[in-house]
Amino acid sequence: MAKRVLVLNGPNLNLLGTREPGIYGAATLKDVEHLCASTGKELGLSVDFRQTNYEGEMVTWIQDARKTADAILINPAAYSHTSVAILDALKAVGLPAIEVHLSNIHQREPFRHHSYVSSVAYAVICGLGVTGYRLALEALAEKLNS
Amino acid sequence: MAKRVLVLNGPNLNLLGTREPGIYGAATLKDVEHLCASTGKELGLSVDFRQTNYEGEMVTWIQDARKTADAILINPAAYSHTSVAILDALKAVGLPAIEVHLSNIHQREPFRHHSYVSSVAYAVICGLGVTGYRLALEALAEKLNS
Amino acid sequence: MAKRVLVLNGPNLNLLGTREPGIYGAATLKDVEHLCASTGKELGLSVDFRQTNYEGEMVTWIQDARKTADAILINPAAYSHTSVAILDALKAVGLPAIEVHLSNIHQREPFRHHSYVSSVAYAVICGLGVTGYRLALEALAEKLNS
Amino acid sequence: MAKRVLVLNGPNLNLLGTREPGIYGAATLKDVEHLCASTGKELGLSVDFRQTNYEGEMVTWIQDARKTADAILINPAAYSHTSVAILDALKAVGLPAIEVHLSNIHQREPFRHHSYVSSVAYAVICGLGVTGYRLALEALAEKLNS
Amino acid sequence: MAKRVLVLNGPNLNLLGTREPGIYGAATLKDVEHLCASTGKELGLSVDFRQTNYEGEMVTWIQDARKTADAILINPAAYSHTSVAILDALKAVGLPAIEVHLSNIHQREPFRHHSYVSSVAYAVICGLGVTGYRLALEALAEKLNS
Amino acid sequence: MAKRVLVLNGPNLNLLGTREPGIYGAATLKDVEHLCASTGKELGLSVDFRQTNYEGEMVTWIQDARKTADAILINPAAYSHTSVAILDALKAVGLPAIEVHLSNIHQREPFRHHSYVSSVAYAVICGLGVTGYRLALEALAEKLNS
Amino acid sequence: MAKRVLVLNGPNLNLLGTREPGIYGAATLKDVEHLCASTGKELGLSVDFRQTNYEGEMVTWIQDARKTADAILINPAAYSHTSVAILDALKAVGLPAIEVHLSNIHQREPFRHHSYVSSVAYAVICGLGVTGYRLALEALAEKLNS
Amino acid sequence: MAKRVLVLNGPNLNLLGTREPGIYGAATLKDVEHLCASTGKELGLSVDFRQTNYEGEMVTWIQDARKTADAILINPAAYSHTSVAILDALKAVGLPAIEVHLSNIHQREPFRHHSYVSSVAYAVICGLGVTGYRLALEALAEKLNS
Amino acid sequence: MAKRVLVLNGPNLNLLGTREPGIYGAATLKDVEHLCASTGKELGLSVDFRQTNYEGEMVTWIQDARKTADAILINPAAYSHTSVAILDALKAVGLPAIEVHLSNIHQREPFRHHSYVSSVAYAVICGLGVTGYRLALEALAEKLNS
Amino acid sequence: MAKRVLVLNGPNLNLLGTREPGIYGAATLKDVEHLCASTGKELGLSVDFRQTNYEGEMVTWIQDARKTADAILINPAAYSHTSVAILDALKAVGLPAIEVHLSNIHQREPFRHHSYVSSVAYAVICGLGVTGYRLALEALAEKLNS
Amino acid sequence: MAKRVLVLNGPNLNLLGTREPGIYGAATLKDVEHLCASTGKELGLSVDFRQTNYEGEMVTWIQDARKTADAILINPAAYSHTSVAILDALKAVGLPAIEVHLSNIHQREPFRHHSYVSSVAYAVICGLGVTGYRLALEALAEKLNS
Amino acid sequence: MAKRVLVLNGPNLNLLGTREPGIYGAATLKDVEHLCASTGKELGLSVDFRQTNYEGEMVTWIQDARKTADAILINPAAYSHTSVAILDALKAVGLPAIEVHLSNIHQREPFRHHSYVSSVAYAVICGLGVTGYRLALEALAEKLNS
Repeated sequence: MAKRVLVLNGPNLNLLGTREPGIYGAATLKDVEHLCASTGKELGLSVDFRQTNYEGEMVTWIQDARKTADAILINPAAYSHTSVAILDALKAVGLPAIEVHLSNIHQREPFRHHSYVSSVAYAVICGLGVTGYRLALEALAEKLNS
Repeated sequence: MAKRVLVLNGPNLNLLGTREPGIYGAATLKDVEHLCASTGKELGLSVDFRQTNYEGEMVTWIQDARKTADAILINPAAYSHTSVAILDALKAVGLPAIEVHLSNIHQREPFRHHSYVSSVAYAVICGLGVTGYRLALEALAEKLNS
Repeated sequence: MAKRVLVLNGPNLNLLGTREPGIYGAATLKDVEHLCASTGKELGLSVDFRQTNYEGEMVTWIQDARKTADAILINPAAYSHTSVAILDALKAVGLPAIEVHLSNIHQREPFRHHSYVSSVAYAVICGLGVTGYRLALEALAEKLNS
Repeated sequence: MAKRVLVLNGPNLNLLGTREPGIYGAATLKDVEHLCASTGKELGLSVDFRQTNYEGEMVTWIQDARKTADAILINPAAYSHTSVAILDALKAVGLPAIEVHLSNIHQREPFRHHSYVSSVAYAVICGLGVTGYRLALEALAEKLNS
Repeated sequence: MAKRVLVLNGPNLNLLGTREPGIYGAATLKDVEHLCASTGKELGLSVDFRQTNYEGEMVTWIQDARKTADAILINPAAYSHTSVAILDALKAVGLPAIEVHLSNIHQREPFRHHSYVSSVAYAVICGLGVTGYRLALEALAEKLNS
Repeated sequence: MAKRVLVLNGPNLNLLGTREPGIYGAATLKDVEHLCASTGKELGLSVDFRQTNYEGEMVTWIQDARKTADAILINPAAYSHTSVAILDALKAVGLPAIEVHLSNIHQREPFRHHSYVSSVAYAVICGLGVTGYRLALEALAEKLNS
Repeated sequence: MAKRVLVLNGPNLNLLGTREPGIYGAATLKDVEHLCASTGKELGLSVDFRQTNYEGEMVTWIQDARKTADAILINPAAYSHTSVAILDALKAVGLPAIEVHLSNIHQREPFRHHSYVSSVAYAVICGLGVTGYRLALEALAEKLNS
Repeated sequence: MAKRVLVLNGPNLNLLGTREPGIYGAATLKDVEHLCASTGKELGLSVDFRQTNYEGEMVTWIQDARKTADAILINPAAYSHTSVAILDALKAVGLPAIEVHLSNIHQREPFRHHSYVSSVAYAVICGLGVTGYRLALEALAEKLNS
Repeated sequence: MAKRVLVLNGPNLNLLGTREPGIYGAATLKDVEHLCASTGKELGLSVDFRQTNYEGEMVTWIQDARKTADAILINPAAYSHTSVAILDALKAVGLPAIEVHLSNIHQREPFRHHSYVSSVAYAVICGLGVTGYRLALEALAEKLNS
Repeated sequence: MAKRVLVLNGPNLNLLGTREPGIYGAATLKDVEHLCASTGKELGLSVDFRQTNYEGEMVTWIQDARKTADAILINPAAYSHTSVAILDALKAVGLPAIEVHLSNIHQREPFRHHSYVSSVAYAVICGLGVTGYRLALEALAEKLNS
Repeated sequence: MAKRVLVLNGPNLNLLGTREPGIYGAATLKDVEHLCASTGKELGLSVDFRQTNYEGEMVTWIQDARKTADAILINPAAYSHTSVAILDALKAVGLPAIEVHLSNIHQREPFRHHSYVSSVAYAVICGLGVTGYRLALEALAEKLNS
Repeated sequence: MAKRVLVLNGPNLNLLGTREPGIYGAATLKDVEHLCASTGKELGLSVDFRQTNYEGEMVTWIQDARKTADAILINPAAYSHTSVAILDALKAVGLPAIEVHLSNIHQREPFRHHSYVSSVAYAVICGLGVTGYRLALEALAEKLNS
């Protein structure tokens, strides 16, 4: 059976393509979803792609992943820097998780340099735009199949 | 057509008038809404007035403002100090925004001295109680008409 | 009439028993609910027991307690460390509140050593696992009856 | 008798209109003075408008206000961030004071984010350019007449 | 044989009842001793109750507990915040220990927010006045009998 | 010939007696001047008593003291905490100096806990109200006569 | 009846005169005791003069002062910087207390710049050598007789 | 002509496979070199693979890249955290650079959380072991061909 | 016409030669003025040389320079470390400015290591005594003639 | 006559061998005493070996050493990190002192990385277990005989 | 015999003229070498001009200067901020040294504001581009001939 | 076969005896080498003694020690405070290592108080001059033979 990856997108990522394209690029979240779907297909992964503006909903989705996913790709966006609840949820479910950021957060405001999620995700990719999602899926496929 | 202002109120502001009146005054949120409505009328502004306890809902409303408002008046209350997601939403929509606080946050606990929202709002008014809302609407009217 | 206590549980506590049992023990949240119910009975307290992953919902429940409770027992979990909104809600309702943590938060990561809630709760119990809930109810009973 | 407001302007504000107009706008201090005068007239306030580059002179003027003014509108400019003496003077006279900044100081260098004056002024307005003076006068009028 | 609990009280607790009753309540240390004795009786615990103003004596008593006690209830008072020696003694004896504070130390001066003892005690109770001693004994009884 | 002491008073001390009497007492600066004059007489000291709101004038007076004084008693008030220029002036003239504060600055806001002047004055007296001036004169007399 | 002053000297002050005379002067503690005795006589004060190297003994003496003294003159020496227990004892007895240091602690190592005792003593004198004791007694006499 | 990528490895990476395999995995640097060579072949990239223990040599190689490479893949190892010289070299040559770390540096000692190189590399990949090199080459290929 | 340079000297520099000659050398301010005059002559510069102890006067002189000078050489002395007003004045006039210190401020107290003026002056020279003035004039001449 | 060395052991060292043997080894304090005695014999040193849990007693013993010892070997244990009084005592007696720690304190909790005693001891040895005592005696012998 | 000056240039300065010319100007290091040679000639100084990317080589050259130079002009570039070894080397050789930076380091990233070398060089010149080298040679000539 | 100890000396130690003898003593590095050789002979250790100014060479030598040594004695000098690469090399080779400093680094500038090497060396000796080397060899001999 295909390995299942839950792809989670945090607040404001639904505006992708329209929001500060100089930083985030022209692709929309729909485009990212398609990229993930087609990449998943190539890699033999089943991809469940979601976005929410609510920290509580993000927590709930992560919890549900215990039953519905084998790994998590998470772009927590703004919640990276402020949410201990998401960190706790990821720790609780214990699934392998990769953290992805579109921009290189180390070149932005100081409060974006630290991510709570990085202390529980086993890997971090940032600065590669939507390509980051594709590479993260490749890495997850490799891990799930090893 | 009348310029539209979205007036957003953060967590616990629904308790206004009952909550620590020594700090926040006796006016209720209903009173503030009426003040904004009548002030808007005088200034030829259409005012959409809301309150939420959810950070995620606040983010969503700000995003929606791209289509339904010309400017934002925001009292983020407790989320001023902890929400990067609201900061990102305001940046993403790019509408002119004024931040209002009923009390003078610089005279309260140190963790209330810093507001993420202040780094994206073009102006800040604090310490004037509900009068702050009226003055912010005046300033927005002046800006939208210039 | 029996005094009413609202027992609030924060994010990820619904996973109790399955999540890091080495830290949190084997009891489930259901077990905790039963413990609180039976303890309440012994003490002559009416207990309303809830859990949420949403900060906003936690705020709203605290606000509602003005009408439906005489005291609050709160385990804010991850929101202890990040939520000014919950602190404000507790201050606004003015009910006596005890903060409970299952683990001893002072022996975990530094960002868990500080709790916003501790500055408004009149007492804190941590490190006693589910026993902490029982003792907190005893203390509340004593306070409400004095 | 008309209520009297002392309007105090700190160092370098005499250069207004010529100094970094990108930040401070094209209006000169003369323009601001006229705006305050005409606004004062409308509101039934008597306005005494001054500027100094000397911290000591600012302190002395504030002290004199005990006899000659009912309220103070102060733009302390650079002295906001470094002058305990002005803070002490304002505390000593005990008149209601509003602090005004032309620019949003929270979006400038970190050393401009903190103002000693904010801990004694009852309200702060920043980022509204010269409009900030007009709104502050309105707020003072409302306060003096209540 | 009855399990033995050593109850240790730090500096100035001998003044209880006379010292800042607004903070610490009207009960004297004698009252606390009686409470512990009677609670111990109910719970089948043998209680050895002591107070000292000397850090060195506190250290020595903790060391002696290896031979004379099964658990420790400690209210280190001022030494909570400054004594590494007490922390080391507790670590060295390895007995289960609960830390109790009469007041909620998180609502007092910042230097009282950190306790060295919390990093070795398995649980902490604060803010419940003398009730804290009773609850701590209950928790110890439960632990020693499990 | 009588030893000469220059007594310098910093900003806002001219308001003594009227300014926050709860903190500073009811004596006026005139009263302090008389106390210093009469104490000087008793001790055989010639006293030159001054006050200024200007940091620059304070610096100049200290410089002039090289020719006109044998020692300095200085209450720098607000400039204690912000003036490197006064520190440099005192260092440059090299006269023995005592720093006096009416209130106990260590019990006020944190920014009042540090005084640049303390690093050059050979002694500091604070918290004794106007008595501090008298004792400082006694100490200076003792030093100048030894 | 003569007012009674307890004069407390902290660790290492028994070495006075032999210890770093460049900093502390040539007078011995015996000399200081005589100075205090004779000054007390002049001022109509009864003086009880003690020294200890033990923090715990210092705490106990302060506690006893409730019955045996009207005021406290304390030179806590090294314990100024590390003892919360002494601070608590002074707070508990509530007697007026003056803190004296022989040297100007603000010109020594940074860890000597802060004294816990300063937050409870109503006045502080430092840098005047043994003269500081005499002046402190004068100030206490004045206070006790007012 | 094939695009050329310079792959730079910092101090101690020559020990790969023998050094803390629990953290860094069992692959040797030779293995990584082969992986990069074969990946480069697939992607049509020419790969120049090097390792040095010398900060100065790393700087020199980066400088030389201006003439011999189109992009840089750099694993600066320990120099990530201490070398401003490498940061300056990368800035000076202006080639696109990706930073790779075998382990997730955010889960190690605090001094490894900050990398000077991250402020000039356009992307960062960490925690994926040697797979990180392959994905970085993919990303560079995509960038160089776009 | 000769280019005009305004040479500004801050507080206490009028004491040069008499003040801590071990640090500042034996030359007086008069000597420095002559050196500047003669150097100016050689370089074809017109030099206007001033000193003030008043921050406000320094600000005013800098403002006036818009009309009367082509460049500024400033030794802000103690105000380097505390004056935002001087920084603002220099920014407002926009003339090229060099900052000169007689001593190497980086080898003195930590609070002298930071200068507000350095963030607006295009160059800084320190540690060369009065030679620093001559070299600064040379550099200004070169800049004004280029 | 044989040179005399006072060997001082701080709090909890009396538990050596029983306390966390993984960190401190299996030797008891008795063993260390014998080691010091026999090493002293070899080196021609007279050794006085003591242990105390009291900071005040440690201070007193150091003071007494002026008359009874030529050098001090001190393992201050927990008091290393908190005792200014011991630092002052060592400074006051002026004897050469070596500080010894059984474990490498730089690999333990951050609060153990700093020792007040290190600023007055002329040498420090840590991490060598009881061998550290022997080596310290050798070093003292060498120093006392040179 | 001509006085000898060793001119040392740190990492990446070999790229001068090609590297960020907006910051460092268009002159190449060759140009700087010629400028130093010709300036040296005018001043009667023998100049030895070098550049290295290696911290260790910089240290070695400074050490060698004991035999081959009378003074040092050093532009440590990136090593200013990170190298204690260069600081130690300069201290060890004891030759007079001037530190030169092409740009004004106080206007760049915070980590460039501090230079270890500044604490041992007797003077610092920054922000004057290559002119800084010429002025530093003048200052050294003056010092060596005085 | 004799156990082999690699003795590594960091930057500027080649200047020993000529460099700041007040701090480092009169012995040269040659003397230290002889001391280590003869001590090694006595203890049955084979000693390989080296010095380098290059961090990279230090790293390489440590790596080579895997094949050529049984233990390491390292005086990293200035690199103690700045080199993560040396820390990593020591961790990678896993040989027992002792860190030696000639001076007591805790009595020097604050930036010398922390050593990266101390977190991996099992023991540290500082302040004993060249005797430190001899004692470290003794300790290593004891460890290697146990």
